[in-house]
Amino acid sequence: MTTPRVFPLVLAGGSGTRFWPLSRKSRPKQFLSLVDRPLVVETVARLEGLCARADLAVIAGEEHEAELRRLLPEVAILVEPAARGTAPAIGLAALRAVAADPDAVLLVLPSDHAIGDPGAFRRALRQAIDLAAEGDLVTLGIPPTRPETGFGYIRVGEPLAGRPFAHRVRAFVEKPDRATAERYLEAGSYLWNAGVFAFRADRILEEIAAHAPEVHAALAPIRAAVDGPDFEAAVRAHFPRAPTISIDYAVMEKSARIAVVPCDCGWSDLGTFAALEEIVAADAAGNVVSGEAFAIDSRRNVVWARPGKPIALVGCEDLIVVDTEDALLVCRRDRAQEVRKVVETLERAGRGDLV
Amino acid sequence: MTTPRVFPLVLAGGSGTRFWPLSRKSRPKQFLSLVDRPLVVETVARLEGLCARADLAVIAGEEHEAELRRLLPEVAILVEPAARGTAPAIGLAALRAVAADPDAVLLVLPSDHAIGDPGAFRRALRQAIDLAAEGDLVTLGIPPTRPETGFGYIRVGEPLAGRPFAHRVRAFVEKPDRATAERYLEAGSYLWNAGVFAFRADRILEEIAAHAPEVHAALAPIRAAVDGPDFEAAVRAHFPRAPTISIDYAVMEKSARIAVVPCDCGWSDLGTFAALEEIVAADAAGNVVSGEAFAIDSRRNVVWARPGKPIALVGCEDLIVVDTEDALLVCRRDRAQEVRKVVETLERAGRGDLV
Repeated sequence: MTTPRVFPLVLAGGSGTRFWPLSRKSRPKQFLSLVDRPLVVETVARLEGLCARADLAVIAGEEHEAELRRLLPEVAILVEPAARGTAPAIGLAALRAVAADPDAVLLVLPSDHAIGDPGAFRRALRQAIDLAAEGDLVTLGIPPTRPETGFGYIRVGEPLAGRPFAHRVRAFVEKPDRATAERYLEAGSYLWNAGVFAFRADRILEEIAAHAPEVHAALAPIRAAVDGPDFEAAVRAHFPRAPTISIDYAVMEKSARIAVVPCDCGWSDLGTFAALEEIVAADAAGNVVSGEAFAIDSRRNVVWARPGKPIALVGCEDLIVVDTEDALLVCRRDRAQEVRKVVETLERAGRGDLV
Repeated sequence: MTTPRVFPLVLAGGSGTRFWPLSRKSRPKQFLSLVDRPLVVETVARLEGLCARADLAVIAGEEHEAELRRLLPEVAILVEPAARGTAPAIGLAALRAVAADPDAVLLVLPSDHAIGDPGAFRRALRQAIDLAAEGDLVTLGIPPTRPETGFGYIRVGEPLAGRPFAHRVRAFVEKPDRATAERYLEAGSYLWNAGVFAFRADRILEEIAAHAPEVHAALAPIRAAVDGPDFEAAVRAHFPRAPTISIDYAVMEKSARIAVVPCDCGWSDLGTFAALEEIVAADAAGNVVSGEAFAIDSRRNVVWARPGKPIALVGCEDLIVVDTEDALLVCRRDRAQEVRKVVETLERAGRGDLV
């Protein structure tokens, strides 16, 4: 078997609000340099060696096109005329890939996650690509390290014959309650769904046609124009007619031929500021600090200081403190999910300029 | 009896660290505009009508002379060549006043307190001045509103004959422990020592000579030069030879002829950020806010935002958050006293530029 031609698609259309005030509408999380480079640049860099650079695409809304072209000049930027979730975006990339190579394997990756062990991640991607080339829809599964209630889980089935690293998927399961999450963690037969997928481009288009006919209908006229001069016009005209739907819900939860490659690679979805402890080492007092902090009798805080402007803490525990040029956040650590409420409050208060 | 000529002395030599990062060495608390104008300007404005403007003096170190002249161009600025506490500073002002008018009454006021009811304060000052003109050393006493352990107290004695507003002082008492402070509050016969005094200039010089001979010795050669061209040189040469000692300890605790005028005037010493609730009205959730704050499910916080830069709180209780251009403080409210530790820490860390 020859190595298939791989077309990675980095999904950069997200507009999360849980990293406010670091993230803004004009600069969502995937553009933040939480460790070193912007997350979307890290995501692309992590794929080094898996594909030809020219086969790599990033998809995002037009408001972020210019910034993506600046950050990633060698990469194709696919512009969504409207945000429609992951299924239409993946379908769009798939029909481009299949036009370029009928045996193309599409690799789908979120743009705003962190990976502690890129080598392990790349090894798992190669396994997923090989498996996908044979027709399976393949997902990466992350061994859970805590009873997380914020993620979907993958229930693992029997190992695949001749592919000891991969398993059949028994079910995708929705975000569990705490007790169920604890049971999943103990059982050892559940993995986190990290939103990383590999499949043949023609296969995912077949599955979309079978399970998400409205997405298929919106993509059909675009497919007809894929190699011609009217491609962009067709995308603008027809893509917005697709329903907003995730690939998980549209296909993965319904298809019969799903496999999972477990991948213990120090993955973090960086869901909230509290997750920064997964990528930045805490000090002896448990404080996770970016920039300069002076912590006096203070423990387990997440502190994000601006360059040259230190943050002093006295007697503080379990806080998130994030300073930016034009706004400051102080949030109890166990309420990091509620940062989005600040964004809602600012919008209601007529301070959309800060959002 | 004619109204005595009054020489107010505003003590602006303080260098407190408990309002960091608002206050700095170069801009101590008396220069902060905590409500409207800088506290030292408020202090001077509050004396309107009590004296001729030209008889008003502010004493401070030379590092603050230029700023004081800018803020208070019509007021005499007395420069201490070295900080020696309140007794030598008051002695210096007294010998100038007695040279200008042998019956001068000196009025001594801290520069960094807040007064909620300036009318009540001025009425008490007039009573204190009248009483002082007859020879008593007079102090203002603030009726306590809580069992404060951070202040000295005045134990009130019998009312003065013919002066129903004033009392003999039985004793000055040191900062009490919590139980003692509660007893004082309940007893009703103790007042807070606010550091506001009135006395004839000649009387305080007599008392200094009697009870603080080293201060007297340092002042004597200055007194000899008071009207001549060598006055400033004499201050520079001799003032630093005085010991560092407060007027309370040097004189008030020892003199036999002390009276107190009780004064219920909404006084606050603004000892820490937590005291801001005494001068800024809290909102319905108990948050004391300067500037713009968005408080989500947050209570009893003191929030000091910069102009145009809002502070968002999520799930925070009993915090002090103070933002400035080059440093940020987050402190548990009940540990506001420990803000000085930040200053010490910064100095040890070689960040004296922020102090």
